[in-house]
Amino acid sequence: MKIFLIGAAGTLGSAIAAELGERHEIITGGRSSGDINIDLADALSIRAAFEKIGSCDAVVSATGKVKFAPLASMTAEDYAYGIANKLMSQVNLVLIGRGFVSDGGSFTLTTGVLAHDPIRSGTSASMVNGALDSFVRAAAIELPRGLRINSVSPGVFVESMAGYGPFFRGHEPVPVARAARAFSKSVEGALTGQVFSVL
Amino acid sequence: MKIFLIGAAGTLGSAIAAELGERHEIITGGRSSGDINIDLADALSIRAAFEKIGSCDAVVSATGKVKFAPLASMTAEDYAYGIANKLMSQVNLVLIGRGFVSDGGSFTLTTGVLAHDPIRSGTSASMVNGALDSFVRAAAIELPRGLRINSVSPGVFVESMAGYGPFFRGHEPVPVARAARAFSKSVEGALTGQVFSVL
Repeated sequence: MKIFLIGAAGTLGSAIAAELGERHEIITGGRSSGDINIDLADALSIRAAFEKIGSCDAVVSATGKVKFAPLASMTAEDYAYGIANKLMSQVNLVLIGRGFVSDGGSFTLTTGVLAHDPIRSGTSASMVNGALDSFVRAAAIELPRGLRINSVSPGVFVESMAGYGPFFRGHEPVPVARAARAFSKSVEGALTGQVFSVL
Repeated sequence: MKIFLIGAAGTLGSAIAAELGERHEIITGGRSSGDINIDLADALSIRAAFEKIGSCDAVVSATGKVKFAPLASMTAEDYAYGIANKLMSQVNLVLIGRGFVSDGGSFTLTTGVLAHDPIRSGTSASMVNGALDSFVRAAAIELPRGLRINSVSPGVFVESMAGYGPFFRGHEPVPVARAARAFSKSVEGALTGQVFSVL
């Protein structure tokens, strides 16, 4: 398979590249690194990236940024940041990419445990993750040509605990290699409309 | 209790007014009807409405518009419409209203069954409902002064089947009066961070 992996330089993206790269051709994308430059917050950048690639069999997104801050200080603009940079960025990847993915191909998006297991300062992450998990369930029943779509919803990564640990006390950290296997299940399996929780 | 009910003129809002109006003072809000003019898509309008009311014990939203269209024709702008008019409209009601709701008061938002039980043409509704259900779970753990927040997630209404029936074949329609009782549970009960499914 020819797999377009966006966010390949990150903690999660590197693990996905290691998992899927053993068996498939990986085209890495990132804002400032990888084979293809792509900024998911910019629809024109997404389109340009797909036009460079031509076509592929799977699109994997391992990116997304939201504002973490106490609810007391969160503004509409803070939520707009997460909506642009984690929700609509990945939705636009599907809206634009669907014209470039081969029959039976797949999209796999990244969400996270906060959709249903919230933490302090995480209201935007929860909102955006919940939005994506529901979008994936809905989009799956309307995609043409056997195209599939799933999300992977991991807990906090073992590898990220140095920075995120204080926010996720009591959460069971997940080795990022285990999250990467859920991406393999989505890309190499046959399921669609699923939220793969990795906890 | 003094309850600010937005969308009071609609099918759902009327039923909520009937249910809660038996025991409480209802201040009705709507874009072009009710005691107070309020446009939830406009933060200034929300603030002006609360400044007129002064304070209240519960805020209930029975409004929200999204674009229903086949995924094949949905654009980023179509999703932005639902994000502005059902998601952020209700989130802004919380962000602005929290300064006007008395200690122990509550917010109750409207979502819907499509968050987890999608239909064709419903990807935006699913996205926005899922976003709100997760936001409510997360916001509940950070609200100060004993403030509570829940969502009510009903199925398609018996009273709306004339228009929506063709989209919801096989769904069990819900009498709107039953959905209204879930709002009563949220407003008059003690739970917070809950998604009250009415199916």
